[in-house]
Amino acid sequence: MSIRIPRGTQDILPGQVEKWQYIEMKARELCRRFQYQEIRTPIFEHTELFLRGVGDTTDIVQKEMYTFEDRGKRSLTLRPEGTAPVVRSFIENKMYGNASQPVKLYYMGPMFRYERPQAGRYRQFVQFGVEAMGSADPAIDAEVISLAVSLYKELGLKKLKVVINSLGDKESRSAHRDALINHFQPRIGEFCSDCQNRLEKNPMRILDCKQDRDHELMKTAPSILDYLNDESRAYFEKVQAYLTGLNIEFEVDSNLVRGLDYYNHTAFEIMSGAEGFGAITTLCGGGRYNGLAEELGGPETPGIGFALSIERLISALDAEGVTLPLNEKLDCYLVSLGDDAKDYTVKLLYKLRNEGYSAERDYLDRKVKAQFKAADRLNAKFVAVLGDEELKENKISLKNMESGEQVELELASFVEKFKEIYQ
Amino acid sequence: MSIRIPRGTQDILPGQVEKWQYIEMKARELCRRFQYQEIRTPIFEHTELFLRGVGDTTDIVQKEMYTFEDRGKRSLTLRPEGTAPVVRSFIENKMYGNASQPVKLYYMGPMFRYERPQAGRYRQFVQFGVEAMGSADPAIDAEVISLAVSLYKELGLKKLKVVINSLGDKESRSAHRDALINHFQPRIGEFCSDCQNRLEKNPMRILDCKQDRDHELMKTAPSILDYLNDESRAYFEKVQAYLTGLNIEFEVDSNLVRGLDYYNHTAFEIMSGAEGFGAITTLCGGGRYNGLAEELGGPETPGIGFALSIERLISALDAEGVTLPLNEKLDCYLVSLGDDAKDYTVKLLYKLRNEGYSAERDYLDRKVKAQFKAADRLNAKFVAVLGDEELKENKISLKNMESGEQVELELASFVEKFKEIYQ
Repeated sequence: MSIRIPRGTQDILPGQVEKWQYIEMKARELCRRFQYQEIRTPIFEHTELFLRGVGDTTDIVQKEMYTFEDRGKRSLTLRPEGTAPVVRSFIENKMYGNASQPVKLYYMGPMFRYERPQAGRYRQFVQFGVEAMGSADPAIDAEVISLAVSLYKELGLKKLKVVINSLGDKESRSAHRDALINHFQPRIGEFCSDCQNRLEKNPMRILDCKQDRDHELMKTAPSILDYLNDESRAYFEKVQAYLTGLNIEFEVDSNLVRGLDYYNHTAFEIMSGAEGFGAITTLCGGGRYNGLAEELGGPETPGIGFALSIERLISALDAEGVTLPLNEKLDCYLVSLGDDAKDYTVKLLYKLRNEGYSAERDYLDRKVKAQFKAADRLNAKFVAVLGDEELKENKISLKNMESGEQVELELASFVEKFKEIYQ
Repeated sequence: MSIRIPRGTQDILPGQVEKWQYIEMKARELCRRFQYQEIRTPIFEHTELFLRGVGDTTDIVQKEMYTFEDRGKRSLTLRPEGTAPVVRSFIENKMYGNASQPVKLYYMGPMFRYERPQAGRYRQFVQFGVEAMGSADPAIDAEVISLAVSLYKELGLKKLKVVINSLGDKESRSAHRDALINHFQPRIGEFCSDCQNRLEKNPMRILDCKQDRDHELMKTAPSILDYLNDESRAYFEKVQAYLTGLNIEFEVDSNLVRGLDYYNHTAFEIMSGAEGFGAITTLCGGGRYNGLAEELGGPETPGIGFALSIERLISALDAEGVTLPLNEKLDCYLVSLGDDAKDYTVKLLYKLRNEGYSAERDYLDRKVKAQFKAADRLNAKFVAVLGDEELKENKISLKNMESGEQVELELASFVEKFKEIYQ
C-alpha cells in the first residue's frame, strides 16, 4: 500500500513549480528595489507567541492552529502567519537599535492553518509578506501598498481593486468601540454566539462576521471614519494623497476591519476583479500595527505590513489568463552511438555544464532516434552527435535545432567551438 | 515578558541571509545546467512514510522526529529528511510514467530533527538535495556526485574530500551480512545495546556505531568490497572510471555505510578538510536506493540522490575563509529638504523603482546630514537632492558618490536622465 500526501496539502511539481520560482524571483527583485531585506524565522514558534500576537479570540488561534508538544514538553505551533514571528525576531534581536531605520523586512514561506480544504485553500500555503517597523510616516503606508500593487501589476494582473480604510488611533477606536456597543447591545441576542462574545471583547470584529453579515444592524453600524480624531484623519488623508500621487486607484471602505486591538490607522486589501475567480477575492491584506511590538514584550514601535498568498496569486493569474514568460530551453543535448561514445559524453556533458550551459544526455541506453526525441522534449537548441567512429576520428557533429544547420567540429575543442557558435 | 525563539532553531537575519540567497541561487543555477527540476513537498507527512522510508530502527525515527496528531487525529511528522517525501510524491503522481526518464528532481527547504543543539547543529536545518529516479546507469551516479562537487567548488571551497563505497546488490549484501553476523556474534556482548539489537536486524549498522567505534572487532570486520558479486563490482568500477574521467578525486572507504535495507551500490560522502571545522566533517551524503520506491508501495525503480545541509556548507565556507561576492549597492538615495520636497520624493522613489532601480528615502524626518549618512550606510551609488526651492524651479541635483561628480537636472525628466547617467 502506498502512502499519500496529508489532506489539505499539495506537492508542487515540475511544470507548476516554474511559476512559483518566477513569482518568488519577482518578489525578491521588487524587495531589492524597494529595499526590503529577507528574514527567515522558524517554521514553528512557542504557541504563546500566536496567542498574544494573533489574538486568542480569533478563528486562527481557536480553531486552526497546528499545536503540539515537542519531546521537551514545549508547546509549539506551526506558524499560521508571518507577522508575529517577524516582530518576535525584531524584539529578540534588538533590531530597534539598528543603525538603519525603519527596519524593512520581507519573508516568503509556508504557513499552516487547519481549515476545511477547498478549491484554492490549503492547510499549508505560502505567503509573501513585508513588515516595515520603526516609522510612523504615512509615506511608508503608501510604500507598502505600492509594493504589493507593483508585484501584481508586473506579473501581469490587470483587474485589481485596492480597498483602504483607517482604524484610527487608540482614542478614535475607543470612541468607535463605544458607539458599536451602543449600536449592537439592544439586539445582540439576534446575533451568533461568536458575535455575542465579541460585543464586549472586540465589537469591531462583529463587522467581520460571515454568519451575520446580512443582519440589518450591520448596514447601519457606526462607521469608524466618523470617529477619527483630527490626527487620525490627517494621517489617513496623507496616505490617500500619496497613493493618488503614485497613480494607484483605490476605494475607501469603512467596513474593512482588522480585528485585533493593536491594529490601527491604515488597513488595506487588494482584491481580484477577474471573472470566475470565485468567492474569496482577496489577494492581499495588510495594515498598521503600532501596538504589536509592545504586546510581544518589546519597545513601542510603529509597524505596517502585508501578507499575500502565492496560491491565490497564481489563481488570479490563471483567472485573467496571464502566461508568465517561462519557456526555458535546453542548451545542448548529447546524442551518442556506441559504448565508447556514450562513455565519452559523460565527460563532455560535465564540461558543458561547467561552462554554464544546460546540457543533457541519455541514461536509459536508448537508440539514436529515441535520443533525438528526448532532445525535442527538452526543447534543445543544439544537439551534438557522437558515434564510436567519430570518436576515433576526433570529430563530433553539432546541429542547430532552430535553423537546422549542421557542422562538424573537432572533438578535442568542442566546448570552445560550442561557445563561439552559441553566441 | 518577551517570547523567545524555540530552542535549537535560528532566525536568519539580514546580513546573514544574503549568503543563503546566494548559495540557493547557485544551487538552482547548477540544477538548471544539470537538468534537475524542483519539487516542493509539504513540511509534514504521514508518520508512516518515515517509519517505512527512513527505517524504524534508525535514530532519526526512534529519537528525533517531531511527531504529533492533527485535529483530525492523523499522526503527522515534520519531515526529518527529503528523500522519502520525494519518492512518495514520485509514486503518488505516477512520475514513473513521465515521458522524460529518468526523473531528475531537486528540493531545498527546512528539515526537522529533535537533537541536542550544538554549534552548527539545529533542530530545524535546511537541506538541498537531488534525486534521480528511473535509471540504473552508473553514469548518473557520477553525475549526482559531480553536481554536489560542482556546487562546493563553484562556491569557492577547496579542501574537499570525496569518499565512495559500494554496498553491492542484494546478493552481495546478503553474503556480507552473513559474514558480519559470524564476525560479531561471538563477542556481541561487548557491544552497546543498540548494536546488540542491530546484529540480527541490520548488522551493517554496527559499523556506523559511534559508541563502539574503537572496538577491535571493528577494524577486522569483513569488508563489503570482498563480497561484491561480479555485476556489483563492474558497476562500482564504472562509477569510479566516470569520476576519474571528470577529474574528481575520491577515496574508496569500505566502512562508509548506509544502514537501510534498500540502499545498494554507490554510497558517498563529501567532507571538508578545512582546519578548525570541527568534529563533524561530513558536508554531504548520498547513495543509491533501488529498493525504496517499492518499499513505499510503488513500482520497482532505481534511484540515487544526495542531501546536503546549507548550515554546514556555510560553516565550511567560513572555515576556509571564503567570501561570497555579495556586496550589493543601492542605486539611488533621495535626500530632501522641506515638506513639499519630501512629499515629492514619494513619487520619484516609486518611479525609480518601477524602472528597475533600487531606491530609498528617509522615513524618520531626518535632517539632510543624517539623510546623507543613511545613504552612505546603504552604499548608495547616487544621491539625488531635492529642496523646496529646487522643486519650485523644477530642478534636482544628482551626485555620483563614487566620482563625486554632481549635476543639476530638470526635475520633470529626472528618471529619464538618471537612466542615461546610470549606464
